[in-house]
Amino acid sequence: MTGYPLPIRRLIGEFSKFPGIGEKTAARLAAFVLQSSTPDMERLAETILEVKKKITLCRVCYNLAEQDLCDICRDASRDRGIICVVEDTDSLVAIEESGGFKGTYHVLHGVLSPADGIGPEQLHLADLARRVKDDGVREVLVATNPSVQGETTALLIKRLLNEMDVTVTRIALGVPLGGNLKYIDKMTMAKAIEFRRGV
Amino acid sequence: MTGYPLPIRRLIGEFSKFPGIGEKTAARLAAFVLQSSTPDMERLAETILEVKKKITLCRVCYNLAEQDLCDICRDASRDRGIICVVEDTDSLVAIEESGGFKGTYHVLHGVLSPADGIGPEQLHLADLARRVKDDGVREVLVATNPSVQGETTALLIKRLLNEMDVTVTRIALGVPLGGNLKYIDKMTMAKAIEFRRGV
Repeated sequence: MTGYPLPIRRLIGEFSKFPGIGEKTAARLAAFVLQSSTPDMERLAETILEVKKKITLCRVCYNLAEQDLCDICRDASRDRGIICVVEDTDSLVAIEESGGFKGTYHVLHGVLSPADGIGPEQLHLADLARRVKDDGVREVLVATNPSVQGETTALLIKRLLNEMDVTVTRIALGVPLGGNLKYIDKMTMAKAIEFRRGV
Repeated sequence: MTGYPLPIRRLIGEFSKFPGIGEKTAARLAAFVLQSSTPDMERLAETILEVKKKITLCRVCYNLAEQDLCDICRDASRDRGIICVVEDTDSLVAIEESGGFKGTYHVLHGVLSPADGIGPEQLHLADLARRVKDDGVREVLVATNPSVQGETTALLIKRLLNEMDVTVTRIALGVPLGGNLKYIDKMTMAKAIEFRRGV
């Protein structure tokens, strides 16, 4: 890519840092930037900065939020008696899109993985226990991915909440083992929520 | 993607406008923006705007340039006696990377296509003729893509320069017919330049 002027080479370099974007694709994206109107690209740059500036984590559930509380925690129609625990916001979005869940969430932003130094502290599990205790939660539905770490995390949550007056359930195995929640179709996701079982 | 906060949905929308980027890939790119540090994303936004602000077309050859003249036209070591005519800057970069050409360029930014309203005026061909006349150019190497339009454009250039004291050559058919210059490997490209023939 040495034949391009420096700013374009720099842009290709920046695009190449994105996951799954190789040098050829980065060059195609940079060519699109070149061809696009300046106002369009100003809007793109602004939108990138807006995401960095405005998006924080909800202080209750750690979902992505534009304010102190996320859209779901601010929604009075959501059932606060049931908390769905997910590994990441992609899983949360997949569950929301299935329409099968009307409670609130707890986003771990990871999964138990001692080898990577991710223990109960990193997953905000103490906050989860506090929510269960303070808010009279009757059910915690663990919707971590159906992987070894996801199952281990589910068992840890079950043990953590053992002494409390709460039912811990696990998303039904309708989602294929080894899969990733964000790629599941909506019907399967809704079924998996409907057939949730005790841990 | 309705489960994401608005700024993220907006960013996914912006990324989806890029060629070859679907909604899933756009969501993955947006997730990368979220995970990246603010300074890194400020640099990305700045680089996008810098490309829009700084990159213009060289007033001599219409290559991408940061100043009045492009890097190649400013390079005193390049042979001004031979001009390589290319359809676009991707072709120029591919030829530069082959190392097989040390002359200057003329970038058409398109190819003869009457159906799309692209005639000789849109391709800066009068400028090419003027360069040949004023700069004592001895050879014009036409390196348009080996497609019907590319060949037609080559013939048009041959006709245009017919009365002038200049040899018009065509890049050798070592590049596969119907192919696109930007995907050719460097060795093939160098061979194709070495075996160029008269039109």
